[in-house]
Amino acid sequence: MKSLASDNYAGVIPEVLSALSAVNNGHESSYGADSYTTRVGELFNNLFEKEVRTLFAFNGTGANLLGLSSVLQPYQSILCTHIAHLNVDESTAPELMTGCRIRPLETDIHGKLTPEAIRDQCIRKGDVHFAQPAAVTITQSTEYGTLYTLDEISAIREVCNEFGLLLHLDGARILNALVAMDCSAREMLTATGVDVMTFGITKAGTIGAEAVVYINDKVGESAGFFQKRNAQLASKARYIAAQFMGMMEHDVWRNYALHANDMAQKLRVGLHQFDEITITMPVEANAVFAIMPTDWIKPLQNIIPFYIWNEKRNEVRLMCSWDTTASDINLLVEGIKKMKAG
Amino acid sequence: MKSLASDNYAGVIPEVLSALSAVNNGHESSYGADSYTTRVGELFNNLFEKEVRTLFAFNGTGANLLGLSSVLQPYQSILCTHIAHLNVDESTAPELMTGCRIRPLETDIHGKLTPEAIRDQCIRKGDVHFAQPAAVTITQSTEYGTLYTLDEISAIREVCNEFGLLLHLDGARILNALVAMDCSAREMLTATGVDVMTFGITKAGTIGAEAVVYINDKVGESAGFFQKRNAQLASKARYIAAQFMGMMEHDVWRNYALHANDMAQKLRVGLHQFDEITITMPVEANAVFAIMPTDWIKPLQNIIPFYIWNEKRNEVRLMCSWDTTASDINLLVEGIKKMKAG
Amino acid sequence: MKSLASDNYAGVIPEVLSALSAVNNGHESSYGADSYTTRVGELFNNLFEKEVRTLFAFNGTGANLLGLSSVLQPYQSILCTHIAHLNVDESTAPELMTGCRIRPLETDIHGKLTPEAIRDQCIRKGDVHFAQPAAVTITQSTEYGTLYTLDEISAIREVCNEFGLLLHLDGARILNALVAMDCSAREMLTATGVDVMTFGITKAGTIGAEAVVYINDKVGESAGFFQKRNAQLASKARYIAAQFMGMMEHDVWRNYALHANDMAQKLRVGLHQFDEITITMPVEANAVFAIMPTDWIKPLQNIIPFYIWNEKRNEVRLMCSWDTTASDINLLVEGIKKMKAG
Amino acid sequence: MKSLASDNYAGVIPEVLSALSAVNNGHESSYGADSYTTRVGELFNNLFEKEVRTLFAFNGTGANLLGLSSVLQPYQSILCTHIAHLNVDESTAPELMTGCRIRPLETDIHGKLTPEAIRDQCIRKGDVHFAQPAAVTITQSTEYGTLYTLDEISAIREVCNEFGLLLHLDGARILNALVAMDCSAREMLTATGVDVMTFGITKAGTIGAEAVVYINDKVGESAGFFQKRNAQLASKARYIAAQFMGMMEHDVWRNYALHANDMAQKLRVGLHQFDEITITMPVEANAVFAIMPTDWIKPLQNIIPFYIWNEKRNEVRLMCSWDTTASDINLLVEGIKKMKAG
Repeated sequence: MKSLASDNYAGVIPEVLSALSAVNNGHESSYGADSYTTRVGELFNNLFEKEVRTLFAFNGTGANLLGLSSVLQPYQSILCTHIAHLNVDESTAPELMTGCRIRPLETDIHGKLTPEAIRDQCIRKGDVHFAQPAAVTITQSTEYGTLYTLDEISAIREVCNEFGLLLHLDGARILNALVAMDCSAREMLTATGVDVMTFGITKAGTIGAEAVVYINDKVGESAGFFQKRNAQLASKARYIAAQFMGMMEHDVWRNYALHANDMAQKLRVGLHQFDEITITMPVEANAVFAIMPTDWIKPLQNIIPFYIWNEKRNEVRLMCSWDTTASDINLLVEGIKKMKAG
Repeated sequence: MKSLASDNYAGVIPEVLSALSAVNNGHESSYGADSYTTRVGELFNNLFEKEVRTLFAFNGTGANLLGLSSVLQPYQSILCTHIAHLNVDESTAPELMTGCRIRPLETDIHGKLTPEAIRDQCIRKGDVHFAQPAAVTITQSTEYGTLYTLDEISAIREVCNEFGLLLHLDGARILNALVAMDCSAREMLTATGVDVMTFGITKAGTIGAEAVVYINDKVGESAGFFQKRNAQLASKARYIAAQFMGMMEHDVWRNYALHANDMAQKLRVGLHQFDEITITMPVEANAVFAIMPTDWIKPLQNIIPFYIWNEKRNEVRLMCSWDTTASDINLLVEGIKKMKAG
Repeated sequence: MKSLASDNYAGVIPEVLSALSAVNNGHESSYGADSYTTRVGELFNNLFEKEVRTLFAFNGTGANLLGLSSVLQPYQSILCTHIAHLNVDESTAPELMTGCRIRPLETDIHGKLTPEAIRDQCIRKGDVHFAQPAAVTITQSTEYGTLYTLDEISAIREVCNEFGLLLHLDGARILNALVAMDCSAREMLTATGVDVMTFGITKAGTIGAEAVVYINDKVGESAGFFQKRNAQLASKARYIAAQFMGMMEHDVWRNYALHANDMAQKLRVGLHQFDEITITMPVEANAVFAIMPTDWIKPLQNIIPFYIWNEKRNEVRLMCSWDTTASDINLLVEGIKKMKAG
Repeated sequence: MKSLASDNYAGVIPEVLSALSAVNNGHESSYGADSYTTRVGELFNNLFEKEVRTLFAFNGTGANLLGLSSVLQPYQSILCTHIAHLNVDESTAPELMTGCRIRPLETDIHGKLTPEAIRDQCIRKGDVHFAQPAAVTITQSTEYGTLYTLDEISAIREVCNEFGLLLHLDGARILNALVAMDCSAREMLTATGVDVMTFGITKAGTIGAEAVVYINDKVGESAGFFQKRNAQLASKARYIAAQFMGMMEHDVWRNYALHANDMAQKLRVGLHQFDEITITMPVEANAVFAIMPTDWIKPLQNIIPFYIWNEKRNEVRLMCSWDTTASDINLLVEGIKKMKAG
């Protein structure tokens, strides 16, 4: 059954399966010393329009924490939003792998971190009693499906510069963000001064493939050791490389990501027509957040599953994927109409 | 180029690629709540002939440490051989994920742990200053390609019982062991009293798929939390499940593992004919260890790559895979002849 | 120079120095196997009016984290106030020693945790992605010098029962709390259902001596192993025992703690007479929090040092100790008068 | 009852108690910002004849691990002897605080690490799978009461230089070593190239006071953060400073340490006269190791307690302290005579 519960429920795009078959060809050196992994490294150099260090990780949690653990000291703190995946969906893996304190901050009304919130935490510098703020992590697109503008990222970079903080970006849905803003990776990530990021393509339509990209070449020199220590080093790395090749070469990702975003717009429009439903967040990528009547939720989930984000206020999340169809959306919208008609 | 360097260099068996395609069919719940993961759980129940708890991990290091971290306390120690993967090939991931002391012990001449070596370490019980021995881990087949007999495992189990230790088994090459000993999993693992194990199929011919199997139902109740905390929980678990389905269903693994072992025997025979070469370990699974003249190593590696295990004594490891062919072996053997003919 | 900056600035009461001399008498077994440590164990049994497990720690951070690390699992979270010592003054030691997530919560206006704030966090039970709430820690007297009533502690205990949480109490200033509320330890701690606590006497007038008291005998069975692992086990434990003997026997502590509290009241009264000064917190133990004109702070600190708690709003903390004198208070109050007279 | 079981059983020298009283004089800044802590810093500068960074720790385990955690990365390994305190008497505190692998090595017959043993471990540089050797720790005097000569330390330093390792020294009994070898700290520690050490005075006759001394000014810049994170930062640091002042000023330590060493010699001579007793280690500091008939041990321990080092071979350790007397020794020796006559 199709679902709007999560982009993790969707399968894998055909180009990725083909790429897996294509690399399944005799022997290759293991642990990333293969030619395909090298090719993906070059692919990322091209994407960021500079030489970057790229390492693979198995999943989003692994990628976020490889990036952060390899650039931080264990007496420091990481500033994030209170809704960040790192704060509410990675168990205590952040503590395990970085040793750091996680400091969740209030956001603006669209789930985005503000320079002011960061600045407020940058106190007691050099005081050994206080876990020292050392990194900011933002999620693009955010957990609310919203987007930081280039100016907003730059403003956060500025406050990072002011207080000597590193800027990390959780790009679990970076492809949706790039197409939504019609930006190049260079414009959004290199030029704004992101130091290290998770470049995730799992949700976009692969089996499981994340890259940690060190855009700032002054950090992460020992990242390979952390990749192994954190148990994120694949023996047969070529099959992770293949997923990147299948998704990223020839800009295959672009149409898939555009499509998911388009479906979210269609969904927004479809839901907007009902007075009983309030769209709670700007729909800027592939997610729609909405409040609906309590007694609508169960019946509608039976038509097509979706996720209850906040039970208290009946807020639900509907997430579009590369394989969400106009029929899926119509199914829901027509279902609402029928239900109302009763 | 084909290689005898590692079974990690080999690709993926066709049945696994087919299984990936087969499950790539619409939406599935994520994080292991899908029907394929359930099916693999049943597959393991059948294999071990009892209800076992089965969790997936991304790689061998991740699987070993999920198993151990979920059954140990951080003030304890883990007894292993000095050549154990855990001791020499997992960086400090064991310390990170378990908190425990790793205690490498001397082995018998075939790389196997002995009850005596374990007993010698079981001192100072209750002494808070001394990291308390709490688990033994053995590798089957061993890092030297040798096998513990059922009696040897049982003898280790007995000393574990005597001192209240858990028995963990690193089965990175468990399939090679099972066919080599013509044993069922029940006979080798359930009946001998292994508590928790890594059941690895990556080296056997998949992309990357390991299972942590809790055979003892009294341990690992909270394992799911450790799987997430250790960043070993896949979002799209069905694609790990598919690899197990492709490898394990219809006993597909059996012929592949037998073949790899057969090739190792062929290799042993081929090398044995040269007086200059000493086979250093009994060839019991898919590995051949041999000492050869220093000036032979480089030229022979150019014919077909293999791994220098111990540089000091010119000991090399030649590892056969599911796709090693008789021609690969012949290539090497004929190469030696040609070289000698010079 | 005398100071109101912190009770850590004060010295040691004479009874403690005498006790150190008294135990300095020949040989004693080390690591807590001495007769003085046993005696202090009995002293705590008497104090709590039940058999409790008592272990020493070197400092407050060490004691808090010995208590918490020995009763929690590393995939859990600890709920505390955002002003808790654990949250803002223990670096990342909590993460190091417990592995857990620290979840700071908003407080009532007097720095106290509320059942509602706790209840709000008790979500997603059993969800492996979410660090599982497992303990609440409260500070008595609080970091704001206020006190939880017995009813307030009981109400927190009730919500802990509802959600299966342990109740930890940071008693860095527990002696001030006990005399202020004219309670027995049984009434405040045993009867209200505190599971484990830090019983601190360092700030009250010793060199450095904290006890971790496990009131709930069902938790902390392996605490001794954590005490050693956390490097909190003293070799010459008798000298920590002696500090407890000097402070606790014959209720020596009572007059000292009463005196410190009395001085805080005197200070409150002294400051209250100035319209320019606002006392910001109820003065219930030995601390006075006040907002004063910006340009008063430096000159007054030159008369007698005190601590700037919140620079933004000119809030200062004045902390009374066992050796604070009426003259110290007068010095400050007269200083203000003189300054105003200008 | 007097004991030869451990120098931890002995009390505190009177000069230390006096120093505690002397500093117990009004208010002092906390956490090491007091004048006494500063004075001890200078004392160490003088002792090492260069500017060193000195931080306090509460006990030997805490000091060793503050030193090591502040100079290492968590993917590295620490080389030590198999009898090192770090290896057998600090639980898993080393793993907790450093994250590193502990690699115990075989020693020469006197419990000392050799350059050869270190060199053998310095393999696989840059290989992310192998915990990277990064520090050597030696104990002076050793756990066997023997001493590294200056040449032996220098030879270890050389192999450290060859492989880029840091040299750490556990000086739990450094005072006994210094007087035994009639060396200055500069000669033994600065000039030989020790990078960081534990300078312990607890066993020598204080309550509990250890210093971590960073002789190499290029390491440990962030040590203060690790001191707090490891819960080794004392609030009332002046009382740790006082112990150093009481022990170290006016070279008070020298006569006490000489005396303990002298008693060990007297004990060695006393035991040597019995054919049934074999002194197993050169007596170079304050410990005597001996093998004696099984049925002698219990009765002699009743005369004066001592420690069974190795039950299997009836090896015992007799440890002399600052307060061991000639009568204590005579009591034992005469006891043996009487028993034999018996």
